[in-house]
Formats: sequence, structure tokens, C-alpha cells
Amino acid sequence: MERRFDEELRELNKQLLRMCALVEEAIILSVKALVERKADLAEKVIKSDEAIDMLEIEIDEQCLRLLALHQPEAIDLRFITSEMKINNELERIGDQAVNIAERTKKIIKQPILKPLIDIPRIAALARKMIGDSIDALVNKDEPLARDVCKRDDEVDNLNDHIFRELLTYMIQNPKTITIAVELILIGRHLERMADHATNIAEDVIYFVKGKTIKHHIEETQSH
Amino acid sequence: MERRFDEELRELNKQLLRMCALVEEAIILSVKALVERKADLAEKVIKSDEAIDMLEIEIDEQCLRLLALHQPEAIDLRFITSEMKINNELERIGDQAVNIAERTKKIIKQPILKPLIDIPRIAALARKMIGDSIDALVNKDEPLARDVCKRDDEVDNLNDHIFRELLTYMIQNPKTITIAVELILIGRHLERMADHATNIAEDVIYFVKGKTIKHHIEETQSH
Repeated sequence: MERRFDEELRELNKQLLRMCALVEEAIILSVKALVERKADLAEKVIKSDEAIDMLEIEIDEQCLRLLALHQPEAIDLRFITSEMKINNELERIGDQAVNIAERTKKIIKQPILKPLIDIPRIAALARKMIGDSIDALVNKDEPLARDVCKRDDEVDNLNDHIFRELLTYMIQNPKTITIAVELILIGRHLERMADHATNIAEDVIYFVKGKTIKHHIEETQSH
Repeated sequence: MERRFDEELRELNKQLLRMCALVEEAIILSVKALVERKADLAEKVIKSDEAIDMLEIEIDEQCLRLLALHQPEAIDLRFITSEMKINNELERIGDQAVNIAERTKKIIKQPILKPLIDIPRIAALARKMIGDSIDALVNKDEPLARDVCKRDDEVDNLNDHIFRELLTYMIQNPKTITIAVELILIGRHLERMADHATNIAEDVIYFVKGKTIKHHIEETQSH
């Protein structure tokens, strides 16, 4: 029975890694669609969302089944409830990629505003945060999870920079407003991906340490 | 033992209602701060976030404790895992209210762009969706939960309207760009609140019916 349960936990982990791979692929494609102005890639991201949604439901039901059948305790209970949360965060990251793909379809109908440098950079940062947070889960690597949390500020700063730059464009040339606003909103979608990655990393720390660092409760409690 | 468990479930429900009340209060205050241009109200919303964060952790730990101690099955298991998810959605709605409050502090330093009519309207719609989704949970009211899901389109349409109107303002008068962009982003925060309310309503339907309607799987499966 025990061995069976361990096997099922490993299977669950594999499913979550598959989910992460699908989501990372969606991020890469959505930004590639934007930078290379390819509507077919954007369409591919939008279509791929169904597979992500289905896998989320599958993982969620698998977690509930494991809770009901094995009634796990302590670390196993934390593991399964953490997987449920992380699964949900990944699905939302997929939704953000779809949002980017939808905006991309609008943007590429218009002339090029400027070469896009910072948006791919912020996308690469967010994607690395997501991959590392899942690696931290698989390897119970708490320092890596903490490192992911720290990187969130870098993403926020870069996004503020994008925001201010695009405001300047709009003010100098009002014809750029429609497209600049879309790019600002794409920046927000990427920032939100990094937020989800931070949530995942916090869940990982909770899972490994058995205590929450959400909302910086550690600092609050140490006073 | 059973009676004790039922009592604890009722206690959990009460905590979630308290969470919902705090979040609704934050929404009301953040929009009031924006409309009445009151920095002190915005500050109050930002400060109130700590109480919401703390309550989220409390509810989450209570759920884990109930899962570990009572190892519930079937509907009780679904109830507790649904409460965990809904708790998390409410906390995120609180974060959106904080985002609105922070933008408000910037906006009210600048001259008035236009009287704000649609933003309070969309806020009222979102708030009603949140309150109704929690009522649906408490009363196991599936039709009400389904009604909440339907209202999401109304919010999206209203927000698209706000977006297009503000774009027109910016194009006609580039001096309004900075503030109009902030208002567009506030519209997105409200739209996101409605999305969270929809997520809650979907969780409620899952809890009541024991099946998921997430990602419109019902329709997909009926073909």
C-alpha cells in the first residue's frame, strides 16, 4: 500500500512537470509570435490552452483522489495540497500567455513601434523563475525557491522601465497610443507570470519547511 | 467526534465570511478613494491588506489541520479543499484592491480627467459577484453560482467600453495619457476581481455537484 502511494506521488510529480513544460512552451511561443509578428504562432498558443486546462483538471482530481484514498499526514498532506495550489498557479500562467497571444494578434496588424528588447528579456526572466520554482519543488531545494522570490523585484523594476518608456512614446507621438497601451498590458501579463512563480516558490518553501513565508510572515513573527 | 468536526466546519465557514467582508470593504474603500480623491482612504486600504493576508494564512492552516485530524471523505473533503481555493481567491481580490489604492494615490495628484461613472459601476458589479459567490457557497446554491459565472461577460464588456473611451481621450489630448493609462489599469484590476469571483463560483459548483465546470469542461464533454 505504502509503495503504491509513493508511486502515485511520483506520477503526480511527473504530471506537474508536464504541466510546467506546456506552460513554458506557451510563454516562449507567445513572445516569439509578438517579436517575429507571426499570427499563426499566436493562434497556436491560444489553441494550446485547452490541453493546459484539461491537464489542470486531471492533476486536481488526482490530488483529491490521493487525499481521499490514502488520507495522508504531515509531509505527504502538505505535498498534495501544495501540488494542488502550484497546479492552479501554472494554469493561470498559461492564461497570461493566451492574453499575450491575443494582444499580439491585434498588435501585428499595425506598424512596428520599436524593436522589442525588454519584453523578451522580462519574458525570459519570468520563464526562468517558473522553471526554477518547479525544480525547487522536485528537488526540495529551499534556497532555490528563496532565490526565485528575490528575483520578483527585478521583474517589477524592468516592467516599470518598460512602462515609463512607452508612456514617453505616447506623449511624443499620440499615433503610437493604441499599440503602446497594448505593450504596457503585455508587460503586466509578464509581471503577473513572475508573481505566480513567486507564489509557487512560496508554496515550495512551505512544503519543504512546513511553515509559510507568504506575505513575509517570517519577518513579522521574528519581531 | 463527528459533532466536533461539524462545529469546526461551521467555524471555518464563519472565518471565510469574515474574509469576504474584509475584501468587500477593501473594494468599496479603494473605489471611494478614487472617486472622492481621498489619499487617506487609499492608505487605509493598503494598511488593511495585512489583516487579509493574516486571515488567509489562518484559514489555510485551519483547513490543513482539519484534513490531517479528521481525514474527511467525499463532500467534506471537497468542502475543505474548496474553502482553501476560495480563501486564496479572496486574498487575491484584496491584492487587486491594494493595486487600485496605489494607483489612486498617483492619480489624485493630477487634475481630474473626467467624472468617473463606469469604474464605480464595474466595481459594484464585481463586488456583487464576489458576495453572491460566497452566498452560493454558504447556501449550497448552485443556480446562484451559475448566475455569477454568466455575469463575467457583462464586466468584460463594460471594461472594454472603458478602455476604448480612455483611448479616445488620450488620442485627442496627449496630456491625459499618464492618467488615462492608470485608469485603464484600474479597469483591469476590477476585471480581474470579477475573474476571481467567477473562479469562486466555479469552485462552489464543483463543491455542490461534485463535478468541475472549470474551463467549460461540461460543454466539451457533452459533444
